[in-house]
Order: sequence, then C-alpha cells, then structure tokens
Amino acid sequence: MCELLGMECNVPTDIVFSFSGLRQRGGKTGPHADGWGLAFYEGRATRVFLDPSPAAHSPLAHFLSEHPIKTLLAIGHIRRRTRGPTTLANTHPFVRELWGRYWVFAHNGNLENFHPRLHASFHPVGRTDSERAFCWLMQELAKAHAAVPTVQELSCTLRELLPVPARHGSFNLLLSNGQALWAHCSTKLHVLERAHPFGHAQLADEDLRVDFAQVTQPSDRAAIVATAPLTAGEPWQALAPGEMRVFVGGRAVAAGPCLG
Amino acid sequence: MCELLGMECNVPTDIVFSFSGLRQRGGKTGPHADGWGLAFYEGRATRVFLDPSPAAHSPLAHFLSEHPIKTLLAIGHIRRRTRGPTTLANTHPFVRELWGRYWVFAHNGNLENFHPRLHASFHPVGRTDSERAFCWLMQELAKAHAAVPTVQELSCTLRELLPVPARHGSFNLLLSNGQALWAHCSTKLHVLERAHPFGHAQLADEDLRVDFAQVTQPSDRAAIVATAPLTAGEPWQALAPGEMRVFVGGRAVAAGPCLG
Repeated sequence: MCELLGMECNVPTDIVFSFSGLRQRGGKTGPHADGWGLAFYEGRATRVFLDPSPAAHSPLAHFLSEHPIKTLLAIGHIRRRTRGPTTLANTHPFVRELWGRYWVFAHNGNLENFHPRLHASFHPVGRTDSERAFCWLMQELAKAHAAVPTVQELSCTLRELLPVPARHGSFNLLLSNGQALWAHCSTKLHVLERAHPFGHAQLADEDLRVDFAQVTQPSDRAAIVATAPLTAGEPWQALAPGEMRVFVGGRAVAAGPCLG
Repeated sequence: MCELLGMECNVPTDIVFSFSGLRQRGGKTGPHADGWGLAFYEGRATRVFLDPSPAAHSPLAHFLSEHPIKTLLAIGHIRRRTRGPTTLANTHPFVRELWGRYWVFAHNGNLENFHPRLHASFHPVGRTDSERAFCWLMQELAKAHAAVPTVQELSCTLRELLPVPARHGSFNLLLSNGQALWAHCSTKLHVLERAHPFGHAQLADEDLRVDFAQVTQPSDRAAIVATAPLTAGEPWQALAPGEMRVFVGGRAVAAGPCLG
C-alpha cells in the first residue's frame, strides 16, 4: 500500500508543509520506503520529480523542501510496493498527454486481474497494475469525448469509468489534467478544505507547526487530499467507499448533473 | 537558438562533467537563459528535470551537479527562446509515451510555417514549433509501424521523416526511446566518441578538467552529442547538414540498410 497526497488551491501555494508530513512516512514513521514522486502543475504542463529511493532519506525530497515550488495543483505519492520491483518505471505519479494537457495519476491499492484491452495510444512503461489502470482510463476518456470535454463532462465520464477497475480491488486515486483534481476513494482517503478563518496546524508525523493565518489572505482556499490525515486539529473528512470528489479553485465542486 | 546535449553509453555514466560545461552557457558564458531541461533514462522510463529559469543560476541544476545520476542515456537542453514565452510548457526536452516507452525530444533551431495536421494521439501542451514537430514525428512513427519496430526500422523511418520539418527551417535535434539516441544535424551539431585509450579533457566554458583514464574501464564507451564542442583537446566531429546518426552502446551504428 502507498500514501497519496493531493493539493488544489485558488492561489499558488507551496506543498512543503504537507509533503514534510508525508515524506516521514516514506521510510521513517511509515513503511512506504519504495520510492516517491511529486508532480507540480503550471497551467497545462507539469514538473514531475520521481525518485525510486525512500522519501524520508531522499536528497531530492530534501531539496524540494528547501526550494519550495508554488503551484495551484500538486499530486504526490510515496510507495510501498506490492507489485513490480522498485524501479523508476514503477514509480508514481504517472503522466500521459491527452488533448494538449498533461494528465497525472497516482494510485493507492491493489487491482486483481484487471487486464483490459489496451488497443489505443496508451501503454504502460512499467509493470504496475496502477499504470495499467491509468492507461485504460486515458483510453476510455479519449474514446468517450469527440471534442475536448469540460471538467463537468470529464467528471461524469469518470463517475462511470472508475467503478470498473475498482471492482478488481482497491482503487484510491488522484487524477488531474491541471484544470481540476479528481479524488476517488475505494477504501481510505481523507479530505481537508482550508479556508478563512485560518488557524494553526500541527503535523501528525513530525514536530512541525504552522499558523496559516500568518501566511494567507482571507480569500485563499486550498483543498488537501491524503490517505490519512496529515495534521492534528483540523477537520479532515473521510471519503466514503466509492465516493469521487472533484476540486476546482480550492474547494469541492459538483460532479454532475450527468446525462443518462 | 538553444544548445543541445546528448550522452549515450555502454555503462552507467554521470553527465555532470558535460552538463557543467553546458550550463555555463545558460546565462553565464552564453545567452541561453530561458530555461533548461535534462532527461535521464532508466530502461524504458525516464526522469526529466525541467526548470524555466537560467541553468547557470538554477538551484536545481546545482543540485544535479552535486548528486549525479548515472545513466546509459541522457538528453539535455538549454533554451534561448525565439518562439513562445519562457514557461514550463515550452521547456525542452519534451516527453511522450509510444509502444510502452517514453520518448524524449529536444530541438535547436526554428521551423517556419510547419503546421502539420495532428489528427492522432499526440498534441502539443506548449506553444513551440519544436513540440509541434515532435508530436508530428510521434504520430508518423506510430502510423508507419504496425508492430513494435526495431532500432534499425525506426532509423529508416526517421531518415524519411526528419527532412520534412527540416525543409521549414533548422532542425538540429536529439531523440530517444531509451534504446538508441538519434541525432539529426540541420545547421550545427557535434559528436564525440570517448573510448579507450582515455585521456584528459578540459571544459571549454569552465576551468574544469578530468582525466577519464582514472574513472573508466578500457571497455567503456560514451558518445557525446552537443551543439558546440564542450571540451578542448578531444576529437569532436561536426555533423554535415542533413546528417542523422544513431548511437547504441556508446558508438554510432549504421542507420540502414533501409528498404525502398
């Protein structure tokens, strides 16, 4: 199993505080010592940092903590491998281009016997069930839309598609195209929306505390999604099994109405 | 115009020495101050570091110099923009997946009025003529091969395809899928093959010297491709306009024979 981290904001924000908590679980307070990755969007493009070594001891993870990159949307993952060796090709998040945007995907869980026919333009580079499911999602999204879809149209399609791999095991995931962050819970995923009035937060995994009131404007909003709550003293919500949420502008938005 | 750097070896090698020379041209000894990128292959996968800020002053470039990543194949690029703003989406090298491998592409030059029909699965994320040409190459490679092609089959197809964009301007480029490094010269590109007996090399842009005899085995081979020679005292060869070379195992290999 692995740990997921997503952040979606209405103003460029650095993810260092949340990532600091997460990376302790990558070989220190947690057993997820088989690599990590972090993708930062800038518009339709993304910078992805991948490292097959444990996050807690990774010089690159330390560098990113010291040189924060502000972004509206980030997806992170630390891995405890269950399938496939610890190689770069198996390190989340995965990236593909569709409709002139980079799509980023990270998964926590195992899929059993999910071997869909990949007859289109998306094929796994590594050997994980996760990347296979991502390639299938990209293929089906591309097939489902003749023209470039809106976030709401994508949400409706994803609501139909995500239960298919989810029937094969656990499919907690984060997905983005830079416009929205989609989070799907199969067994375990938590959400926090930070907004005015801001307060203090204390990392659950490290002795690090921040007063968000000191570093924010009243209009700032940020949605944080993580496998387990990263902080104490903030109102994290557990998503229900089968629940999908869509975040735009730092808050959850309606995933419908969908036709049919 | 920009500067290209490629390295293809038969043993994992770090690119720090060559990259140290190149990055000085990114805002210090050269004017290429509009971002840089460096892709390191590990099998079919790749780690790509992108930075829209000048390479000479980039903390990330410094980090990579201090924490070298050994690889059999790397492609680097520093940019002096001629088209499109300095954004992440316009920063080379570009990456796409085809046949379960990541393809990496970097370009030096300008293409005028090259607007091919992109009717398949590859679309630009940014606004450069370079990424447009890359998407067209990926589309045409995919169309040309029903089954996964060999390096030699790919070389034959590329020999037919590369002159098409090249007719629209200058098209010096590096391309790889992790199996081979393809280099195409339109106006300016130099190649060096390092092999036994190894000697000293002195960077042209910085006071840095290395004795390769001390850090190599006699069987080691490395091919280096760069816009301009990076070192003094080594036998760099200029490629001819229209020339394509293919590197496998640290040396140039035949790009043919091709049928038809």
